[in-house]
Amino acid sequence: MTIIVLRLGHRYVRDDRTTTHLFLAARAFGADAAIYSGRRDPEVEESLIKVNATWGGNFELAYSPNWVRTMEDYKSKGWKLVHLTMYGTPLQGIIDEIRSSPSNKVVVVGGSKVPRKAYELADWNIAVTSQPHSEISALSVFLHELFKGEELSKPFPGGELEIVPQAKGKRVRRKGLVQGPSQGPMAS
Amino acid sequence: MTIIVLRLGHRYVRDDRTTTHLFLAARAFGADAAIYSGRRDPEVEESLIKVNATWGGNFELAYSPNWVRTMEDYKSKGWKLVHLTMYGTPLQGIIDEIRSSPSNKVVVVGGSKVPRKAYELADWNIAVTSQPHSEISALSVFLHELFKGEELSKPFPGGELEIVPQAKGKRVRRKGLVQGPSQGPMAS
Repeated sequence: MTIIVLRLGHRYVRDDRTTTHLFLAARAFGADAAIYSGRRDPEVEESLIKVNATWGGNFELAYSPNWVRTMEDYKSKGWKLVHLTMYGTPLQGIIDEIRSSPSNKVVVVGGSKVPRKAYELADWNIAVTSQPHSEISALSVFLHELFKGEELSKPFPGGELEIVPQAKGKRVRRKGLVQGPSQGPMAS
Repeated sequence: MTIIVLRLGHRYVRDDRTTTHLFLAARAFGADAAIYSGRRDPEVEESLIKVNATWGGNFELAYSPNWVRTMEDYKSKGWKLVHLTMYGTPLQGIIDEIRSSPSNKVVVVGGSKVPRKAYELADWNIAVTSQPHSEISALSVFLHELFKGEELSKPFPGGELEIVPQAKGKRVRRKGLVQGPSQGPMAS
């Protein structure tokens, strides 16, 4: 199952750090790629390229000038759309249903104001708690539940460095064999 | 078990949104309170006061000019200190041990560069993946694991509004009975 995160309404400069954190979380918690709409932002894109180069894996990032079309395109190809919103159905009651759907999925993550269209196009509108918090935490906990925690051990082949876990302190190891990234989910 | 989040090295303006998101995630995912060090920031504090007033609960926020002393003080009172860092022991191998410890806990979340002292004072240095992502996602997934997902159904008594979950769209209800917050964990 391929998972792509779709970030709506990125605002240049103002959202730099939250959008970068969101994509780093998407990558770390097992999503295959992300697409964002709103203002195109070279700084966010370069951050992700650097993280892949240093820490490995095949996470891809693309820009879409039209998120409605992106949602409709994936839907027409048989993907399922999950929209994360504090107004939706509680995660804990619906995650089994989502997990058992074999379709590829787009996980839609809003900005400050999400148009009604996103709610309508989504196959599921999901609340990770009905309290206000952060799209970064909502996405992370959603992916963690979707993958049942197995994403915590996901390998990131290639790259230059890897961490050697320590009870105290830091240890980083240079990878012996630098592998090129393999074909990613949006290559075809 | 009382859980307090300790945020190190907050930077004024630059960290406004990420620190606010971090505290909102702490509140939504079941922590009782947060303390932050670095630059004091009225905007962050006001955001949390407003969220409590609107959405309920007793989440508290305090400032500490000296995080080392804060860690040492809690430690001397028998609390256990969990430091979240990508360099630490993988969460999935140690969460059972942390969960089965009955002590109250301080969850320490770093800024960009965390001094060695934090690693030394911590009872556990924990990695939520060994990949770079976000302190917001690390904290959220840590709390979600600590509480075994039960925090997703945590009630937030008092406040003005509550969400009525919907499969499509938004529904917010004004709470009939506005309750004052009860005594919080840092009152004594």
